[in-house]
Amino acid sequence: MSRFVCFLCLHSASYTDSSDDETSPRDKAQVNTHGSSDFCVKNIKQAEFGRREIEIAEQDMSALISLRKRAQGEKPLAGAKIVGCTHITAQTAVLIETLVALGAQCRWTACNIYSTQNEVAAALAETGVPVFAWKGESEDDFWWCIDRCVNTEGWQANMILDDGGDLTHWVYKKYPSVFKKVRGIVEESVTGVHRLYQLSKAGKLCVPAMNVNDSVTKQKFDNLYCCRESILDGLKRTTDIMFGGKQVVVCGYGEVGKGCCTALKALGAIVCITEIDPICALQACMDGFRVVKLSEVIRQMDVVITCTGNKNVVTREQLDRMKNGCIVCNMGHSNTEIDVASLRSPELTWERVRSQVDHIIWPDGKRVVLLAEGRLLNLSCSTVPTFVLSITATTQALALIELFNAPEGRYKQDVYLLPKKMDEYVASLHLPNFDAHLTELSDEQAKYMGLNKNGPFKPNYYR
Amino acid sequence: MSRFVCFLCLHSASYTDSSDDETSPRDKAQVNTHGSSDFCVKNIKQAEFGRREIEIAEQDMSALISLRKRAQGEKPLAGAKIVGCTHITAQTAVLIETLVALGAQCRWTACNIYSTQNEVAAALAETGVPVFAWKGESEDDFWWCIDRCVNTEGWQANMILDDGGDLTHWVYKKYPSVFKKVRGIVEESVTGVHRLYQLSKAGKLCVPAMNVNDSVTKQKFDNLYCCRESILDGLKRTTDIMFGGKQVVVCGYGEVGKGCCTALKALGAIVCITEIDPICALQACMDGFRVVKLSEVIRQMDVVITCTGNKNVVTREQLDRMKNGCIVCNMGHSNTEIDVASLRSPELTWERVRSQVDHIIWPDGKRVVLLAEGRLLNLSCSTVPTFVLSITATTQALALIELFNAPEGRYKQDVYLLPKKMDEYVASLHLPNFDAHLTELSDEQAKYMGLNKNGPFKPNYYR
Amino acid sequence: MSRFVCFLCLHSASYTDSSDDETSPRDKAQVNTHGSSDFCVKNIKQAEFGRREIEIAEQDMSALISLRKRAQGEKPLAGAKIVGCTHITAQTAVLIETLVALGAQCRWTACNIYSTQNEVAAALAETGVPVFAWKGESEDDFWWCIDRCVNTEGWQANMILDDGGDLTHWVYKKYPSVFKKVRGIVEESVTGVHRLYQLSKAGKLCVPAMNVNDSVTKQKFDNLYCCRESILDGLKRTTDIMFGGKQVVVCGYGEVGKGCCTALKALGAIVCITEIDPICALQACMDGFRVVKLSEVIRQMDVVITCTGNKNVVTREQLDRMKNGCIVCNMGHSNTEIDVASLRSPELTWERVRSQVDHIIWPDGKRVVLLAEGRLLNLSCSTVPTFVLSITATTQALALIELFNAPEGRYKQDVYLLPKKMDEYVASLHLPNFDAHLTELSDEQAKYMGLNKNGPFKPNYYR
Amino acid sequence: MSRFVCFLCLHSASYTDSSDDETSPRDKAQVNTHGSSDFCVKNIKQAEFGRREIEIAEQDMSALISLRKRAQGEKPLAGAKIVGCTHITAQTAVLIETLVALGAQCRWTACNIYSTQNEVAAALAETGVPVFAWKGESEDDFWWCIDRCVNTEGWQANMILDDGGDLTHWVYKKYPSVFKKVRGIVEESVTGVHRLYQLSKAGKLCVPAMNVNDSVTKQKFDNLYCCRESILDGLKRTTDIMFGGKQVVVCGYGEVGKGCCTALKALGAIVCITEIDPICALQACMDGFRVVKLSEVIRQMDVVITCTGNKNVVTREQLDRMKNGCIVCNMGHSNTEIDVASLRSPELTWERVRSQVDHIIWPDGKRVVLLAEGRLLNLSCSTVPTFVLSITATTQALALIELFNAPEGRYKQDVYLLPKKMDEYVASLHLPNFDAHLTELSDEQAKYMGLNKNGPFKPNYYR
Repeated sequence: MSRFVCFLCLHSASYTDSSDDETSPRDKAQVNTHGSSDFCVKNIKQAEFGRREIEIAEQDMSALISLRKRAQGEKPLAGAKIVGCTHITAQTAVLIETLVALGAQCRWTACNIYSTQNEVAAALAETGVPVFAWKGESEDDFWWCIDRCVNTEGWQANMILDDGGDLTHWVYKKYPSVFKKVRGIVEESVTGVHRLYQLSKAGKLCVPAMNVNDSVTKQKFDNLYCCRESILDGLKRTTDIMFGGKQVVVCGYGEVGKGCCTALKALGAIVCITEIDPICALQACMDGFRVVKLSEVIRQMDVVITCTGNKNVVTREQLDRMKNGCIVCNMGHSNTEIDVASLRSPELTWERVRSQVDHIIWPDGKRVVLLAEGRLLNLSCSTVPTFVLSITATTQALALIELFNAPEGRYKQDVYLLPKKMDEYVASLHLPNFDAHLTELSDEQAKYMGLNKNGPFKPNYYR
Repeated sequence: MSRFVCFLCLHSASYTDSSDDETSPRDKAQVNTHGSSDFCVKNIKQAEFGRREIEIAEQDMSALISLRKRAQGEKPLAGAKIVGCTHITAQTAVLIETLVALGAQCRWTACNIYSTQNEVAAALAETGVPVFAWKGESEDDFWWCIDRCVNTEGWQANMILDDGGDLTHWVYKKYPSVFKKVRGIVEESVTGVHRLYQLSKAGKLCVPAMNVNDSVTKQKFDNLYCCRESILDGLKRTTDIMFGGKQVVVCGYGEVGKGCCTALKALGAIVCITEIDPICALQACMDGFRVVKLSEVIRQMDVVITCTGNKNVVTREQLDRMKNGCIVCNMGHSNTEIDVASLRSPELTWERVRSQVDHIIWPDGKRVVLLAEGRLLNLSCSTVPTFVLSITATTQALALIELFNAPEGRYKQDVYLLPKKMDEYVASLHLPNFDAHLTELSDEQAKYMGLNKNGPFKPNYYR
Repeated sequence: MSRFVCFLCLHSASYTDSSDDETSPRDKAQVNTHGSSDFCVKNIKQAEFGRREIEIAEQDMSALISLRKRAQGEKPLAGAKIVGCTHITAQTAVLIETLVALGAQCRWTACNIYSTQNEVAAALAETGVPVFAWKGESEDDFWWCIDRCVNTEGWQANMILDDGGDLTHWVYKKYPSVFKKVRGIVEESVTGVHRLYQLSKAGKLCVPAMNVNDSVTKQKFDNLYCCRESILDGLKRTTDIMFGGKQVVVCGYGEVGKGCCTALKALGAIVCITEIDPICALQACMDGFRVVKLSEVIRQMDVVITCTGNKNVVTREQLDRMKNGCIVCNMGHSNTEIDVASLRSPELTWERVRSQVDHIIWPDGKRVVLLAEGRLLNLSCSTVPTFVLSITATTQALALIELFNAPEGRYKQDVYLLPKKMDEYVASLHLPNFDAHLTELSDEQAKYMGLNKNGPFKPNYYR
Repeated sequence: MSRFVCFLCLHSASYTDSSDDETSPRDKAQVNTHGSSDFCVKNIKQAEFGRREIEIAEQDMSALISLRKRAQGEKPLAGAKIVGCTHITAQTAVLIETLVALGAQCRWTACNIYSTQNEVAAALAETGVPVFAWKGESEDDFWWCIDRCVNTEGWQANMILDDGGDLTHWVYKKYPSVFKKVRGIVEESVTGVHRLYQLSKAGKLCVPAMNVNDSVTKQKFDNLYCCRESILDGLKRTTDIMFGGKQVVVCGYGEVGKGCCTALKALGAIVCITEIDPICALQACMDGFRVVKLSEVIRQMDVVITCTGNKNVVTREQLDRMKNGCIVCNMGHSNTEIDVASLRSPELTWERVRSQVDHIIWPDGKRVVLLAEGRLLNLSCSTVPTFVLSITATTQALALIELFNAPEGRYKQDVYLLPKKMDEYVASLHLPNFDAHLTELSDEQAKYMGLNKNGPFKPNYYR
């Protein structure tokens, strides 16, 4: 499941009318204005509202729009039959409609039972994309929708776009014959990628797969740049904290930690960090952060932020030593970094003071402010800019085009990273947003550098 | 009316049950548990919930708590009968209860018909403070409440704490004999201060008044430091914009402009400014911002922010030239800076896409994103940290103590700024929040500098 | 004597041939190519080389050049007979030649016995400005030169431009009749201004005087902006220190301290500050610096910088506790801030390791690195950009024009600050260097703000 | 030849007495106080002065000192016979004496004919290290010294430490039998590494070699962190420029460009960049820099800095369009980036205004300020902090230990990068300089992360 789960749940809430009727979509007979009933959404009548959401999203996803224009003549996805399983939001809709514009036929379902924007699903269904998804599916609904996507008469998927691996797993298990004929899988999530590598190791991956999660552009945006903004947003929305002068310890100085530290320092917080890796620690020194052990500073801190990817980085013992009012939150990995379980003990009182904000109260009255119960702060309590989603979606589209059009033999039955050159292409498609003008190498310069004028410009390992 | 109006309306909403019964508080008979009915609030039964809010606020207002402790023995406000008219929030309650702890008797009413936190008003009434205020008063209710505060048998105010000047005006007009006997007025708002200066010029101010709006500490926090944070918060909550790489023009490089520019630049925005004053313009150059005319850059901008205090800084002509998706907002002065009126014309379509966010749509489909209809962004769309409110409240408390205890003749019938030394004292009361340790002058050093060891340390004009 | 003394000594050294002949200029008979011998410089033949230096300086002093152009038609200094006593450098020459271009007659001498650039003095003498100055004057020479400037047949000064007050003092004492007829004095240095205020207090100042030292523009550049750069330059040139990760304590958070802290933090140093003033301390907190007492942190510091204006801020006891290799320097006031005298004791060894760099060695081998023997680091060990000198020179020129042309009665026998409007004019003359474009108020806006469209735009106390 | 060439030439100048006698060291008979004459230096009597320089350097090279302590018991280099060819400076001396302390026998020569600090060479010779080097060698001297190092009776090198590849080349060509028995080569320079890879490709490298130039820690310090400081230092020392408000274009946004941009922006310059790589360009956008083509902005720029590694990035056409006073310099690669050759044409006048600073004067009087004739600014015009040299030296020492002690078969006849774990060790040895405290993984955490508790903590490609 992807990092965006919680955010989307939260976010979509504001757009979706919760007072809808309670009949299950599976029990409704709905037809779009073109007479098709090959879809299952909450309410096809919401299509117009959903269309407006899609149009607004298009404004910030000009990379995809420009991809439509550049590639439309040649229809590079003509013949592609893509089955997709992702969050269904206005941004995804822009992706799907781009794939269609490039020649693909698509069938779509949701990778999360809460995250579907019903209006957007309706708008897609109205234009003829078979969508099977609604907000608030049951577990059973979830797999039913996936199945309806894959298992349809007279249409057989030859490409998979997945986010979390559930769709891939379903096809692999239930429709092995389809699976074998797929030309490629594009997977976006950490979990899904992990599953693919396991399949590959076990020798059971009979299809080339593209890991788009680890492309440079996506990583930098998901981690460094996005966290630089979302740490402030998440803390502000939950606690209204004033950053100036606050003492903050950030555990971990990887990309996420670097993003958090940069932003907090810039707004006047006094930041120190903890690290296990001496190279990252030396970088922190050079960037002006004291490198400490958590136990040395825990008593003085106003805010504790974890970004290590590890577990039990903040222990009960350290929680016991925090001062009154200390805020604790996690920007790192799932919900393991803070030992929240240790706080569920009888001597401590939990008080929910706002959505996503708990006061844990010690017997002496000390309160520790725990955000999002230790889950990812930026997904739970802030939003993801459309611009970041645009990078992800563009990467997915290019990966699909690459896999679908790759000459025989370029990709084997393995998991691949997006080629550097395509990663550069994703970046280049987003430069017009900033009115940024690239310089071109002259022939002489390209020769001097030993580079192709069109890239790739850096080795694969360059970050 | 103070800068905090809109924020408080917004904020209190989250705490107040809107499904309350609809009977006017003026028609209810309510008694607190001590048998008193000298108050008028929405529902005295909400007192317990309000008490909790006050306790939470106390955690971030340690300056007032510490003032209580330092001054409690001597009761510097013993004998003071203070009538107050401010927003009624948990933070104000901490102020009021501090005044009471210092010996004062208080009667209180609200300076705004929307901003009262009903639970907090109930909590104050429950402890015996006569409060007359509720959320959603009518204009008639508003003046009725003020009158009930002032006009009560056997109690005559000798101090006024006002925010906006309405209470002062009422006493001046309706109870001139009370007005003459008042020892001092403390006024917090720009508007109220302006009224006092007019009264003073007209020779009608027969009481010393303290302008706490312009004390250095308060100004820096209300403008530079607070705006540094709230510009990010306000933009993020309304638009989910990604700051990195955005082209932003900030109109005006005073304290508010400096705060906005610092924060936006730190998060990767590319910021230029407009200025009329060459000294501020030169500062902007030195701080790394291009100084431009608005018309030169308007076509390229992603965000336009006004902080000039002037009117029609962004004109219809400039709005016409903005690019699609440009965000326009005001951090400066009331609602005059953007010529919003010019946008209310038949050829343009307004679309409300979220609370406080309108899309103005041109005939060619171009959308401009207008925030808070041109009113103050940080009050409409972000929150004010308790820490800033603590500085304001502490300044008010000290001004009351100073005026009440000043020897005959120190203050005449005029408007005064808080003495530098008291301003320094407000600052010093807030240093423990940051674990900041002041250095003390040695006798020899004080002599060398020609300073008193306890301050004031700077001339009055120092900012 | 002005802050620039040491710098100029240092700097001019690089341009002046030290192998010159040793005859005193007073004993030489020199004539310029126009046949005049009304000057006394080291060697009139160096004029051409000096001219080139002046031309290079002109490139960075476009404000003065533009002043020449704007005011040349009207010759606002026609009739002015200015006697000047300043450092004689290429930048001063640009000022003097501007005054001449505006109609003035000038006679000039040096305010410092070491700082004259001989070639520049020759170039001025060659064009007909009577200059009496050379590098390496004796005390006797110094007063002889001043006297030759003032006391000449058929010419009587009516304006004084002074830097340090020596010229003013000489005229006041020796030529009281001249002094009485002077229309105005312009003084640039702290010391000279101090002397003028004393004269004024004593009722002996019979002439209006302009304090150009305290104009906002000059102050900001001399302190905040210039120190932001010179702290880095001074430390780097003397110690080749790497800033990243260094622990630095800055004593004093006024304008100079703010400049130092900003720059050091930006380059990755970890900075804390000491303060006596709670308002400055609170600003430091908000800006992200820990506020500490020196004794609490002295053991850990890599660099100690004083910017307080006070004395004995760093005591022998603290020097004893510093760690090996700690660098100590002063950016504040004269040479009082570090108790250097206490280091001249038998148990400590001084080792001069470079120009301006001493190692003080404790008996246990510990070394403390003392820069410039505790004198001002940025004057001793870095350079002052021509741009800063341009601001000073322009301010001086405008002050002369203002005093010379002021209508009877505008200025009395007192010391004045440059009017806000002229300060703004100095700033505006420097904006073209940055290609900065000022916005103009519309009539309607000016009226709304209650401002004149041409300024002044801020109250006099605005910084 | 390494990046440090020019710096050292420049720097050593200040320490070395230029009035030395002119007899060639090869013609002198010198003996140290222990009776040995197995060395050839300028003047053995300068040993004491050189010793002091070494002691001062030791203070900032605590990583090597600590390496001496940690490894001294076991003498990991016992048996190693190292022949070295590097710059001979105080910092190198600390490295050599560390190698000796760890058990090695060393013979040393200089990799550059100008860079030897004669006093340091004398100090090394005095303690018994056979050194063959002096400042101002002829080409013939250079090879004679190398030969004397290698070719000595009764001693045969088994390790090579080289900087530039000249020593390696000499041994390879002249003493192939020695070459074959060498256990390993450690090479520090780009050029030397390049030669080794060529040898390896040609199948002629019969010895394992370690490329220490590309270790992460060294790269980050040589590029990002060092350039962040040296761009300011180099510009300031040559031009006394004020950074605030200056318009700067930086060509190339790799590590060097990132370092330059960060520093200049922090000091108030307005920076834009040029890039060929869309990923780097997008990073620049996110970091707040406009991405432009050079030709679009060249007319407005105050400073142009190249950091691309390419050639002719600044062409004559662009130089023609620069404004008067524009400063041009190179931080990137050798001297190819600015087309300096094109400026050596008859219509342009060159004027040397300072060491390393030329004014190029166009027929219309326009001047362009060219620094270091287009060679590397930071090597020509600033200094390299000892701390950076310490990282390099420590990396070299560890590489020697690794190669000398590696079990048979770990390294083949190829060129290797320093293992990640040793790179981490270099970093960890430098953390105490910053009083940085590393966190250790618990067993449970190490297991969860799949890491060894002692590292390596990141994959090899991590930067």
